[in-house]
Amino acid sequence: MKDKQYLLIPGPTPVPPAVTAAMTRPVIGHRSEDFARLYESIEEKIKMVFQTKNDVFILTNSGTGGLEAAIANTVNPGDRVLALITGNFGERFANIARAYGANVEEINFGWGKDVDLRAVEEKLAERPDYKVVLATQNETSTGVLNDIAGIGALVAKTNAILLVDGVSGVGGVEIKTDEWRVDILITASQKAFMLPPGLAMLSVSEKAWSVIEQNKSPRFYFSLPAARNSFVKWNTAYTPNVTLFMGLEAALEMMLEEGLENVYARHLLLARATRAAARALNLSLLAEDRCASPTVTAVYAPAGVEADALRKVLKSEYGVIFAGGQGHLKGKIFRIAHMGFVGKMDVIIAVGALEMALAQLGCPVELGAGVCKAQEVFLKKAQA
Amino acid sequence: MKDKQYLLIPGPTPVPPAVTAAMTRPVIGHRSEDFARLYESIEEKIKMVFQTKNDVFILTNSGTGGLEAAIANTVNPGDRVLALITGNFGERFANIARAYGANVEEINFGWGKDVDLRAVEEKLAERPDYKVVLATQNETSTGVLNDIAGIGALVAKTNAILLVDGVSGVGGVEIKTDEWRVDILITASQKAFMLPPGLAMLSVSEKAWSVIEQNKSPRFYFSLPAARNSFVKWNTAYTPNVTLFMGLEAALEMMLEEGLENVYARHLLLARATRAAARALNLSLLAEDRCASPTVTAVYAPAGVEADALRKVLKSEYGVIFAGGQGHLKGKIFRIAHMGFVGKMDVIIAVGALEMALAQLGCPVELGAGVCKAQEVFLKKAQA
Repeated sequence: MKDKQYLLIPGPTPVPPAVTAAMTRPVIGHRSEDFARLYESIEEKIKMVFQTKNDVFILTNSGTGGLEAAIANTVNPGDRVLALITGNFGERFANIARAYGANVEEINFGWGKDVDLRAVEEKLAERPDYKVVLATQNETSTGVLNDIAGIGALVAKTNAILLVDGVSGVGGVEIKTDEWRVDILITASQKAFMLPPGLAMLSVSEKAWSVIEQNKSPRFYFSLPAARNSFVKWNTAYTPNVTLFMGLEAALEMMLEEGLENVYARHLLLARATRAAARALNLSLLAEDRCASPTVTAVYAPAGVEADALRKVLKSEYGVIFAGGQGHLKGKIFRIAHMGFVGKMDVIIAVGALEMALAQLGCPVELGAGVCKAQEVFLKKAQA
Repeated sequence: MKDKQYLLIPGPTPVPPAVTAAMTRPVIGHRSEDFARLYESIEEKIKMVFQTKNDVFILTNSGTGGLEAAIANTVNPGDRVLALITGNFGERFANIARAYGANVEEINFGWGKDVDLRAVEEKLAERPDYKVVLATQNETSTGVLNDIAGIGALVAKTNAILLVDGVSGVGGVEIKTDEWRVDILITASQKAFMLPPGLAMLSVSEKAWSVIEQNKSPRFYFSLPAARNSFVKWNTAYTPNVTLFMGLEAALEMMLEEGLENVYARHLLLARATRAAARALNLSLLAEDRCASPTVTAVYAPAGVEADALRKVLKSEYGVIFAGGQGHLKGKIFRIAHMGFVGKMDVIIAVGALEMALAQLGCPVELGAGVCKAQEVFLKKAQA
């Protein structure tokens, strides 16, 4: 059944029927009272997910556009920026800052490792003149979750503002924007928010506004002051993707109906089951348990197997789609997302297909052993 | 994720995205050239699935309406009808004949058994005056496949016409309407044809027409002569469900693109894997291998477990939906469909969830053991 696919990549993620249905509603004009009410409804719910009282904006662009909006509004040429890098998306965030002329200093913790707070503390103590600190909540390329609370507490003691890429985390992993002192939090529609790609959501603190107001970098589409001016009328500066807004409202309703705590617990459970299954198949995990992402798990292909060849068998024989590795991990790892509209059976699907694909590629694999471990994790939870 | 369900019942079955997309096309008028071309395209393809040169009709009603059309056009009060019964749907077919005043003689082979050709041969030899013989290709209530070729060869030697309920078989199991001498074959949209419910398809042989033309039973909506009169202009007698017609064309295109032989082989493989998995879990199967349905498998719940309680856990905990038992098997068996838009992972889902649900109900079950057996069946096939 070539048409039957199980999309288990870290975005875009599967879209629930209720969200798809919402997006089939007739398009409406964006300068209308109907749109204002839609935006108002969404804004209230996003603030609950972000745990913030800060201003929240929804931009019609993908996550990278959201990251650029954060940079373009805060970085002038020559500004000192500290980038905390744990993988591909940390590097991208730093590169966007460089594109705006920033003087970027990196701490690269290595792919598969998380941010070491002592290193951040030392660096911030060394130089008091950082204007902006960049961090990644959930590093999609490695399946690592960073300690944003810890980073936020350190940055808050300085004059710098903290920009957090929460693209593949927010909605699947708890974030306390205000309590953790995140000045700009950026996320996007196509990950834990269960929507097609096309929207970025971001929040802006008072501390960030004071930087933004003095910023001189060229910006028009990404102008946050322009967004704020329109927002007073529950509007957007430029034409928003109204269809995705309708879908976003439905997705947020689903998340709040399930209960955010339950959403986060579900992601964590699926991550634990995926990791237990991989270990039962004698596969090595890229990230340690301590900093393992609840939304995506990176697994090394076994010796002698090219990860992308494995992914090909998975797709062609079973319709199961994992992501590959990025950068120097390309061909070495595969990544299984358990993000958004996913449940226990998605892990069973992932592991059941993985076992068969490994066997087909000649790996010694005990069929059912990984599935059994995932089942045990689910049953233990059910009995708890 | 309460919205995420795996529908594994013997109809309605999951609808493929390409079929759903086709059904979102704007509605068209049914007395139009566009509709005539659509009907023409469908008719040609249905004849390929039915393996027939007979007339084929598409009625806007569910399968039971199709069965009634077959009866209403062939049975007069007092007519002698022989009903070959292997389960609930065989009984229903006989009851429809009774509703039209038929003098029905039943051979009931028992639920879980298939038609014994020797018994049919004897019965037909005993009384040469049967006007109609009723048979079920695939008995949905028990997961039994009957030998229509064998039955057809016996009935063809008599003056009786053979009416075959192919509702849960056709499209998933090969049928050779003409070669097997099936006079009226009836099937429906919501099973192996991968559509929502609402259409019945049937074919009518020359031998059947000679009976239909002399039939006196009241019929209007179900009138096959009326259908034939409209069909000369590629039309229907009354308003057809044009949206389902659009979907049917897309579904038939999918089936022919995959290749009918491949479609049938896929169903058979999924049935074999399901049965192997059930046996590995020490569960008893209702039907013997010899007459096992390729589209649905009936399994006894283990001792001490109510089948419907098991189904409740499967649905609420895993979103996996099996059918229950019918008639005297209610609460004793559950039925797993592998019918229509289904592939290997559907069996993994069914078995993976079944193992967990059994464990939750306190059954001694070796987690992963059933999944492993299903995987072995798939891998053996892949290597063959």
